[in-house]
This record gives sequence, structure tokens and C-alpha cells, in this order.
Amino acid sequence: MEVTRSNFKDNLNKVYEAIEESDFLAIDGEFSGISDGPSVSALTNGFDTPEERYQKLKKHSMDFLLFQFGLCTFKYDHTEEKYIMKSFNFYIFPKPFNRSSPDVKFVCQSSSIDFLANQGFDFNKVFRNGIPYLNQEEERQLREQYDEKRSQANGAGSLSYISPNATKCPVTIPEDQKKFIEKVVEQIEDLLKNEENESLELEPCTGLVSEITHLLKKKNLFWPYRIGGVIKKKKLFTWERYIVISKVNEEERKRREQQKQAKEQEELNDAVGFSRVIHAIANSGKLVIGHNMLLDVMHTIHQFYCPLPDVTFFRFNLFSYYFVSRLLDTKLMASTQPFKEIINNTSLAELEKRLKEVPFSSPKVESADGFPSYDTASEQLHEAGYDAYITGLCFISMANFLGSFLSPPKNHVSARSKLIEPFFNKLFLMRVMDIPYLNLEGPDLQPKRDHVLHVTFPKEWKTSDLYQLFSAFGNIQVSWIDDTSAFVSLSKPEQVQIAVNTSRYAESYRIQTYAEYVEKKHEDKRA
Amino acid sequence: MEVTRSNFKDNLNKVYEAIEESDFLAIDGEFSGISDGPSVSALTNGFDTPEERYQKLKKHSMDFLLFQFGLCTFKYDHTEEKYIMKSFNFYIFPKPFNRSSPDVKFVCQSSSIDFLANQGFDFNKVFRNGIPYLNQEEERQLREQYDEKRSQANGAGSLSYISPNATKCPVTIPEDQKKFIEKVVEQIEDLLKNEENESLELEPCTGLVSEITHLLKKKNLFWPYRIGGVIKKKKLFTWERYIVISKVNEEERKRREQQKQAKEQEELNDAVGFSRVIHAIANSGKLVIGHNMLLDVMHTIHQFYCPLPDVTFFRFNLFSYYFVSRLLDTKLMASTQPFKEIINNTSLAELEKRLKEVPFSSPKVESADGFPSYDTASEQLHEAGYDAYITGLCFISMANFLGSFLSPPKNHVSARSKLIEPFFNKLFLMRVMDIPYLNLEGPDLQPKRDHVLHVTFPKEWKTSDLYQLFSAFGNIQVSWIDDTSAFVSLSKPEQVQIAVNTSRYAESYRIQTYAEYVEKKHEDKRA
Ligand SMILES: Nc1nc2c(ncn2[C@@H]2O[C@H](COP(=O)(O)OP(=O)(O)O)[C@@H](O)[C@H]2O)c(=O)[nH]1
Ligand SMILES: Nc1nc2c(ncn2[C@@H]2O[C@H](COP(=O)(O)OP(=O)(O)O)[C@@H](O)[C@H]2O)c(=O)[nH]1
Repeated sequence: MEVTRSNFKDNLNKVYEAIEESDFLAIDGEFSGISDGPSVSALTNGFDTPEERYQKLKKHSMDFLLFQFGLCTFKYDHTEEKYIMKSFNFYIFPKPFNRSSPDVKFVCQSSSIDFLANQGFDFNKVFRNGIPYLNQEEERQLREQYDEKRSQANGAGSLSYISPNATKCPVTIPEDQKKFIEKVVEQIEDLLKNEENESLELEPCTGLVSEITHLLKKKNLFWPYRIGGVIKKKKLFTWERYIVISKVNEEERKRREQQKQAKEQEELNDAVGFSRVIHAIANSGKLVIGHNMLLDVMHTIHQFYCPLPDVTFFRFNLFSYYFVSRLLDTKLMASTQPFKEIINNTSLAELEKRLKEVPFSSPKVESADGFPSYDTASEQLHEAGYDAYITGLCFISMANFLGSFLSPPKNHVSARSKLIEPFFNKLFLMRVMDIPYLNLEGPDLQPKRDHVLHVTFPKEWKTSDLYQLFSAFGNIQVSWIDDTSAFVSLSKPEQVQIAVNTSRYAESYRIQTYAEYVEKKHEDKRA
Repeated sequence: MEVTRSNFKDNLNKVYEAIEESDFLAIDGEFSGISDGPSVSALTNGFDTPEERYQKLKKHSMDFLLFQFGLCTFKYDHTEEKYIMKSFNFYIFPKPFNRSSPDVKFVCQSSSIDFLANQGFDFNKVFRNGIPYLNQEEERQLREQYDEKRSQANGAGSLSYISPNATKCPVTIPEDQKKFIEKVVEQIEDLLKNEENESLELEPCTGLVSEITHLLKKKNLFWPYRIGGVIKKKKLFTWERYIVISKVNEEERKRREQQKQAKEQEELNDAVGFSRVIHAIANSGKLVIGHNMLLDVMHTIHQFYCPLPDVTFFRFNLFSYYFVSRLLDTKLMASTQPFKEIINNTSLAELEKRLKEVPFSSPKVESADGFPSYDTASEQLHEAGYDAYITGLCFISMANFLGSFLSPPKNHVSARSKLIEPFFNKLFLMRVMDIPYLNLEGPDLQPKRDHVLHVTFPKEWKTSDLYQLFSAFGNIQVSWIDDTSAFVSLSKPEQVQIAVNTSRYAESYRIQTYAEYVEKKHEDKRA
């Protein structure tokens, strides 16, 4: 189901309900770009540590917009032995909701935009009709603004003598106008005393509403009255504005105030917008499935909670602060035992195809009443809702496969099964050679890397120069860092020291061991 | 007329013709945003110098994308005494045309996007079907790439023994493959000697095409043959690739090469894309009209020529290098004598309305055959093509008005008339108090500003604090620079020194004269 600004409010409860009743959720995001700096392959160096990868993505990927969010909820029907799914495809856009709200700037990467355009992505839906959102800080500020306005209206705040619409001009009211205002206040006091009159039409005046309001407030005379309802009357060449003041009784005042508060709350909710869906997912405690989901998770935290924390990846564990739910990355799962050996290609489309064949089997999944169904035969890849759906299918097939190792074997393995716990809260690290995942719950794996060299050289060098340099060492592998440095892994760790020693007097290039490189980097950081 | 990637090539000659035959052109651009930093009002400080304004726009506005360009050509029909106009609305997008082409990143500003969305702007047309473009440097690089490829193909370049598709892997061909390759070359030599055979099918081989090519080239045997036409044959489990080599006679070779060159030239033209329209405008020598066109001109240079020059605005005169055509800004014209006194609001929509009334008159303008006409009664403001059209109308009305001062008065003043020359190549500076324009042809105006103070203060200060500070000096005007500084202009220059003296011992704020401020800034720059 497509959800835009137009139908968001009407369907929010449907979304909440789907999350609540589900056994697990699958998510997927589409972004306006991937990297605003290095090429994707330099962004994903084969010897990145999880911390480095996180920092790079934080630095180079967060200025893009997550503008489509797919959510697919799966609920198991035990009697029918099938999953019922509900899929939502949300369009998201930070539409400024008033003059003082944040005016978000986001980057677009032509190649990503072009890629989505070729998939038939509907940019008009995003930009014309995307659901707005606020992060936690913006929500807090907006709430504060409302609170402040309310306490001012209640006379609780200490107001200075400044008109609200002209905070930047000093209010120096000329003597004759002061007289006029005081006369008005007298008239109002008369109105109050006199039971018959219900309203009062002031002499023509312009722009003094706030001054009059202020004076009334000072006299504690504000609330029994409603000022406003400025009437315009056409005069010969111009319009004259009359201020109409009418009595309001206590009950009506209360009713009005409640109405106003309800309206404010609704405005606030509207502004928080799509973030409410994310909060619901995060707080549901459900298992949240994604495919290669590191970027999705980072974007989600960054866009709907707070700027990603600085310095070390460990603080990324602020994640655990916001997310009650646990995460499971199907790309990691498919790259791990016992799947690793029988699955060649873990890209989403290929994985989905592979999992239809023995020894796997396609799960029985139907869409709930009133929800459109997807046809996996005619691919709609790269619509976030569809990708989330496919991701869910992959998870079910793989989870069920794990059941075949039990004795007696089980056909259905639920999202609550112990069998899948080893995969929880580990996010797949793309193209890292020896660290499969970023661990959200504990320290990361620390492979030895004692066969790895860090090499710096002139930027004219090509990979072939590196092959030549190391030609004596047999097979090597090059992982470019930037255009003057790369990691080179040798096949035998014992060659490392030889290479370093040989290089000692070289002028054009420099070789250090991986350990030295790390040590140096830490030193630079401390300095 | 709407022009997208689909119909660009078919209509390019129509565009060229319209420019060529016209008396003047009007242009307008729509951008994905305005400022990626300060608020628009801080970006446009009332006491910016033209150089400062230029630098600020360069710094804060150039990362946005000019994604719609309106061009409206006007040609005067003397017998019918009316203008014939042709309006084009171009959608523009930097679609990467191959793997090595630039992957442009551009910024979007939510408020600008939302604004355009509300006007019904079609983002899908931009992103799915925008016309690509290259700047001068990108065009040069691409041309070089083609030249290089061609000279390599002609055997002119000195090739190293590297296959083109694997520049990053060293080519160490195993001995047995070397033998194979040499055998192939022998076979080819036989083919050449033997008049009967026309082609030769090699034994199954993979990925050796470039090695074979290379060897043939080394033996100067390349051109009489056509290598390629790899045939795939299905074997039991896999495909086998056969390379087919066939003779090519000299004539056919030439024909093929010409075809290839023509194709390359077309590819290059396609890649240069919309820039060709800009080049045509710039080189036409016509008068180019815009409304408040500084940003349009800067974006045009930046996007279709080269990054804007650094340091001083004077080098902005590189403009004169690219543009043969002259510019005229209708907002400047409307803000200058004799229009200034009779035109209150110079925003495009208001100006257009005003110029329909006495003492002005609506010009007679019709759209050319086959071109859709715009209806100024039902506004379509903020479609670039329409805005360009309206801008043209405004120019005509104002130019004709100048004719009323002649004796005898003239109803029609052409774009070549001396009367409008004073407005040439001066770009309106928005919200600058005392310098109306940035002069593209000479030094800028240097108003005295001896009544202006530069004030720094704690960021808690509001405008009211400044009013209070200067309360002794009567009317003042505040122009915020950032949240700890502002220009304050006093009504009387002689008060300036008093204010500076009084402030000498102040702790929370600092006051200096405008002259001191400028001097200090220059010093800082020199340091
Ligand atoms: N000096 C040099 N740098 C390279 C070379 N190849 C790659 N790099 C650097 O490594 C980065 C990643 O390159 P690569 O992995 O080939 O990705 P690609 O540029 O997207 O094809 C590039 O952006 C360069 O900075 C090379 O041959 N020479
Ligand atoms: N400290 C302080 N700075 C201000 C105030 N008003 C404006 N500024 C600064 O001046 C810049 C331009 O403000 P303004 O001209 O009011 O434009 P706006 O912020 O778009 O309404 C702001 O971004 C602030 O940095 C103020 O009352 N106090």
C-alpha cells in the first residue's frame, strides 16, 4: 500500500496495528545517493575496520535523503500454516511546516537518481506529497515553542512590551496613540460592567491589536474578552480596520482553549509525521529484518532520531537506547554457515531466486485483505516496499531451512526461535575481507591481518605498479584506500617483514605493516 | 514548448533558428535551492559590496542544480507591428552517460522544492527525462578520451602490453596462452595470404581478444582484419566463446571508420547536450533579458562553462570571455529612472501587472506558428519558460515607454536602440541599499557609507537592543550580518564619530566605522 502525506493520517492506525500483531517486520530504504565523496569502492575498502566503515558512511552518506521507506509486516497463521503480510511503501519528504521550521538541505547523486528514474521511481510523489518528519531535537524544540506560546497566552510568562509580529522593532508608542489605547481599555471595562452589551466596535485603528492586548493582560482583563475579528470597511481610497471586541464566558473560554490545545497537539503530531512510524517500529520489540541494512539503520537513526554520534563507533550503541527491537541482516545470514556454502550470490534479487530452489523452499505468504499483493515473478525491485517484502521472504526460507537440522526436523521456524538468535544485531559489512559484520551488542571481531601491508606511493601509480613491486611474493591482493595509498595483502605472513625491510631505502614509496599503520593512526589521533 | 531528453535532438535546430532570427531573448532558470548556509536575508545584507554579494552567492548557491531553463525569443514584425515569440521550457539533468563520466552531486533545499511542488513543477520530467550537459572542462576531457581512443585504434599511440578492460591487473600471460596467441596470429597471416577464405573461426578462448589485437598491431597486421564478432555457443554446462576474424577491404575499412567517427561525434554532441543551447545564446550577440538575473547568470556560467572564478569579483569578467551577447536585467531597469518613480513593486508578477496600465501599454506579442501561447490572465508563474516570456513583455513595455520621451515620440523601441544601452550588462543587486547593480563592464559604484557603523555584540542581542543602544540618534536602520554583528546606519553622518567615541569603553559590544571595518577586512585578507 502506498502511503503519502494525503493518506498518512488515515492509515496510521493500520500501520500501528500491523506492527503490533506481526511476528516480524522487514524494512528497506531508498536514498537520494550513496557517497558524496570517494567512489563506492574506496568507501568500502576491503580492510576497513567496522569503526572506519561506520565513520566513512557517516561522513559521506548522511547528507542524502532517505525518501522512500518500505515496511512489510509478517504474521504467522498457525492453522493455515502460512504468513499473512502487509506491505507499506512510504514516501518521505521534509516539507517545512512553517516559517521557523528547519529548512532541510539534502544532496542528490545523479547516478542514484538516474538509477531510480530507470526503475520508474515517482519523484513527484516524494516531493509533492512526501510525509514530513522531525528528529528528536526538532520535536523537542517544536513542543517547547507550543508550550511557550501557551504559557504566554495564559499570562504565565513575563512579557516584555513588544508586539509579537514585530519583535525586531522597538515599540515606542507615540503619546497620542497611548491615549487612544487607554481609552480603548476604559471602553472595555465599561463593556464588562454593562450586562446588556455583548460587543464593542472600536474607532478605526491599525496595528495596535497587540498593544491593546498587552494592556488588557496587564490589567488581568484579558480572558473574559475576545479581541480580534478585525472588520475592514471600504472608505473612499482605502480600507479602514475596526477592531471588534466581544465578551466570552468562562465555559466558552475553556472549550476554546481545549480545542486549541487539541489542535496544537494535532499540528505537533503532523509535524512529527513519519517519525512516528519509526518510533513504533523501534519500540515494538519485534525482530526487524533488512538486507545489507547498515546504511538503512544509519539513515534511520540520523534522519528520525539524531545526528549520528561522533568519534568512535562504539557510541553507535546509542542505537540500543532507541531500538528495543532487534535487527537481523539477511545478507549477513546468507553469508554465514550453513548458508555460505550453498549460496553463491547474496545480492537481494539473486538470493530470492536461489531460495526458491532445493534445499530451500518458498514460504507460503499471502497478503492480508485489502493489501495489494506483489508478484515475485514480475520483479519490482527497488521499490522499497517490494524489497522489504522480498527480504522477509528470504528470511523465512533461511529460518525454515535451519529447522531441517533439528530432530525431528521442523518446517516452520518462528522469528522467536533460538535458532536465529546468533544472527541478531549484526550488520553486514560490504566488501570487508575478514570482518563479516558490525556487532551492535559487543566488541567487533579483530582478525590478525599479519599478512597485510600498508603502502604509500606517487599518485601516478597503477595497480600494475603494485603488482610489479611485489612480483617476487606471488599472489597479492590490492585494496585501494585513495590514490596514493593501498593495502596489499600477501599470501604468506612471513613475507611481510621481508617486504618492509626491502623497502627501507626506497624513495618513491613507503611500506609499513598493518600493525604499524594502526599504531601510527592512533598516535595521530591522540596528537 | 517543452523540451526534454526525448525531443531535444529533434528540436535543436528549431532552437538555433529561433535564437538566430530573434531581436532579443529572454531567459529564466529554476533551481533546486537558493542558500545552503545563511538565511536568504543574511545572504543579502543591505551593505554588501557587489564583490561580497558575488562571493556569498558563489559560496552558498552554486551547489544547487539549475534544472529548468526557460528561453523565449522575440522577433519584431515591422509590417504587422507586433512581436512574434517562441518559448522553450528545457528540463535539465546531469545524467551520467557512461561509467567514467562525472557523477554530479547537487543539493536540494526543502523549502525551494516544496515551493516548486506547489506550483505543480514536474520533478519526474527533470529526473527521468532531463537533458544532460557538460561544462567546458568535461567536454574537453571527453573529446580527449575519444581522440586518444582513435589514435590508439590507428596504432599511433604507444601502447603498453595491457588489456583495455583490465588496466588495473598486470598482464602476465601464462606460457601456454602465449603459444595459443601466437598460433592465432599465424592463422591470421595465412588467412591474409589465402585469397579464397573470407573469415576464420578461432578455437574456443576467453578474454584474449585484446592480447590478440595487440600482437596483430605490433605486427602491423591490424587494419586489414576485423576481430570481434565473438560467437557464443552453448556447451553442456557453459557457453564457449569463439572469436571470428574476417577480412575487411580498404574501402570498407574507411567507410567503417567514417561511420565510427560520425557516431563518436554524435555521442559527444549528445553528452554536451543542453550546453549547446547556452553556447548558442552566448555566441548569438543578441540582447539577453532576465529579471533579477544575477543568480541565473552565475548558475549558467558555473553549470555550463566552468566553476566560478575565485577571490575577486573582477574576474567574474571572465563572463565577457564567454558571452558575446549583452545582458539586460528588467528588475534593474524598473528600479531606475524614469521607471523608479512610477513603479512601486518590481517583483516579476507585480511588474507585469503594473506595465499593463498607464502610462505603459501592453505590447502586441503573438506566439509563432506551432508554438503554444501563454495566457497572462491565468498566471503560470514559476515555469521558467513562462517567466522568461513575462520578462520579455516587461522589457518591451519599458523600452517602448522610453520612446515616448523622444520627439517625435516613438511607439516601438527596438532592442538595438541607443535608449536602452545604459541598462546593458548591469545585474540587479537584491536588497543592497545603495548599490543598485553589479557592473559587468567596469568598476562598481562606491557609495560613501559614512553614516554606517559596524557593530559586534553578544548573540543574545535582538534588534531591539540595537535600537536601544542607538536611541539617542533618532531613526536608525539595522542590517544583520550574522548573529553577533550588524551594520547600523544612522540618519546623520556626523553622529558616527560620536557613537564610536561613546563605545570606546563598552565591554559587551564594539562599534567601528564602515571605513575602519573595510580597512580591517582588507588587512585580514593580506595577512
Ligand atoms: N593512483 C591510483 N589510484 C587508484 C587507482 N585505482 C584506484 N585508485 C584509487 O582508489 C580509489 C578506488 O578505486 P577503485 O577501487 O578502482 O574504484 P573505482 O574508481 O570506482 O573504479 C579511486 O577513487 C582512487 O583514488 C590507480 O590505478 N592509481
Ligand atoms: N543575535 C541576533 N541575530 C539575529 C537577530 N535577527 C537576525 N539575526 C541574524 O541575522 C541573520 C538574518 O536575519 P534576518 O534578516 O532577520 O532574516 P531571517 O532569519 O531569515 O528572518 C540571522 O540568520 C541571524 O544570524 C536577532 O534578533 N538577534
